[in-house]
Amino acid sequence: MTHPAPGSGAPAPRLAHIATQAKVSEATVSRVLNGKPGVAAATRQRVLAALDVLGYARPVRLKPRATDLIGLVTPELTNPIFPAFAQIIEQQLAGHGYTPILCTQIPGGATEDELVEQLVDRGVGGIIFLSGLHADLSTDPARYEALTSADIPYVLINGYNDRISAPFVSPDDHAAVRMAVTHLADLGHTRIGLAVGPARYVPSRRKREAFLTALGEPAAQTVQHTLFSVEGGQAAAVALLDQGCTGIICGSDMMALGVIRAARDRGLRVPQDVSVVGYDDSPLIPFTDPPLTTVRQPVHAMASAAVGALLEELGGSPVQRTEYVFQPELVVRGSTAQVRT
Amino acid sequence: MTHPAPGSGAPAPRLAHIATQAKVSEATVSRVLNGKPGVAAATRQRVLAALDVLGYARPVRLKPRATDLIGLVTPELTNPIFPAFAQIIEQQLAGHGYTPILCTQIPGGATEDELVEQLVDRGVGGIIFLSGLHADLSTDPARYEALTSADIPYVLINGYNDRISAPFVSPDDHAAVRMAVTHLADLGHTRIGLAVGPARYVPSRRKREAFLTALGEPAAQTVQHTLFSVEGGQAAAVALLDQGCTGIICGSDMMALGVIRAARDRGLRVPQDVSVVGYDDSPLIPFTDPPLTTVRQPVHAMASAAVGALLEELGGSPVQRTEYVFQPELVVRGSTAQVRT
Repeated sequence: MTHPAPGSGAPAPRLAHIATQAKVSEATVSRVLNGKPGVAAATRQRVLAALDVLGYARPVRLKPRATDLIGLVTPELTNPIFPAFAQIIEQQLAGHGYTPILCTQIPGGATEDELVEQLVDRGVGGIIFLSGLHADLSTDPARYEALTSADIPYVLINGYNDRISAPFVSPDDHAAVRMAVTHLADLGHTRIGLAVGPARYVPSRRKREAFLTALGEPAAQTVQHTLFSVEGGQAAAVALLDQGCTGIICGSDMMALGVIRAARDRGLRVPQDVSVVGYDDSPLIPFTDPPLTTVRQPVHAMASAAVGALLEELGGSPVQRTEYVFQPELVVRGSTAQVRT
Repeated sequence: MTHPAPGSGAPAPRLAHIATQAKVSEATVSRVLNGKPGVAAATRQRVLAALDVLGYARPVRLKPRATDLIGLVTPELTNPIFPAFAQIIEQQLAGHGYTPILCTQIPGGATEDELVEQLVDRGVGGIIFLSGLHADLSTDPARYEALTSADIPYVLINGYNDRISAPFVSPDDHAAVRMAVTHLADLGHTRIGLAVGPARYVPSRRKREAFLTALGEPAAQTVQHTLFSVEGGQAAAVALLDQGCTGIICGSDMMALGVIRAARDRGLRVPQDVSVVGYDDSPLIPFTDPPLTTVRQPVHAMASAAVGALLEELGGSPVQRTEYVFQPELVVRGSTAQVRT
């Protein structure tokens, strides 16, 4: 894209002049005049105001390029952790002049491959995948190679696959389980269970590994792979409570709520009889009954890192094809207590 | 856009032939071949399969038009009612071949006007506003006239302004408050309060009207306008509990959670000492402490109606410029009980 001519008859704007007035760099002025992304809305506004003040015509409105569209592929938005990520990603992309296209998946709806095909058809500049198929080791990573060959950069959040060459952003699943195990052990629990989603997902697999590392191989008996939902937690709890577990660590807060429901169904109290640790944390979790003790995902840091990595890629400076791992934190509320003796 | 030529050398596809094979109308086949929106993904797939079976080349991939982009302007996604709407709107738009652009607002972030300007710059085909400025009677409706003159159809959810000529989709706020008042009155409550957001918002205003209609003008003393958040509910509750209210009706579930917190802060139990009714309902609300009695917004019906109205507008058949009002329902859980005598 070339430097656009100023309004006819107006003097050619002098970059240095405008930059001084707007208190920004000449490069920034140039980006704004050329309608390039990567400039915060407030800064852009300041440059346009400087043009007005100095009597230069504003640049003719430029048609944004299709490559300014960024796909955001998410699972359903029912689990509040996904909108939490989406909100931060959306706002940070918009702040840099990019336009986020939201693509959600539901069972029976468009598949991730269809969504990606539509995004490529649209000519998107890049894609951020949130808990996508990349986290599912049973699927074919070739779909991502297609993006690479089409020169469309992408970043993958929450899941890691060494057969895909891209920047990954993940929470430290091992640390999350270690924190939860230590917390329950400190409270005197010796019979601890783990309820996570299907084993083909990287986060489930890593949590299982960390669980066995912390408690030894025989602890495999008290690992249940079900679904990440309330009903999944409920199903896992039936088996774990039958095995006499007094503390249960979950792969999501939704699962933890299902575990609490299952415990109550058989007359057990949480936390007096059973301690439950969730995973994710979101604004309503402090209000659950009981307020959930949970391991919080560093959503803001992770979302910002994903956007940052994508912006670097879009700016032509590829970031390292590696996994950026973020530290979760244990938030102790009311669903865990000393084991009953 | 003209009918694209089939792959070179292949016979020209005969619409009737393909339509029979795909078991769809000729018009639908034509839409698919011309890459027009308004065809469900499954149907499109069926037509492409029919082409394959009959040995016709698939149409050359067509660059989608900018007008297939649809803006979805929402407030922050922290209140789970907004992602609930966003998910359904996104999926229904995608099912019809449109691509939704998500625009969220936060205090200090892009304003609605800036978001709209960006969407217009993008050449979007239409916009759905969710709880936007249209619900704020203190703002200038001229911004919507600009869209009308630019021939960009839009639909407004949750808020009504008779100075804007567009299809509106709203829950019946009057009915919502009537249901809540009747429920509390049936439980013997005579001192009832209303905690809603700022008076300049249409839903707050309507809830207040319905409250005074049900309980008489003197009930205006027990109406508190604060913010739709947890903290807003907490602030409203302090005043309402001081006035001796035993039942409090809220403008959002977040407010209701704040009211419960304020009641407990002064040693009151919910529902034994104070009954609380929320508004919205979302997947985590059954798990709050206590499980919240709330008035559920008919999210699916409203989101579908908004998409339906926009699709009609995009298809060139303007729908009536009126308000489509949807019936909420009272979900009785554990935050309301018989008044203490």
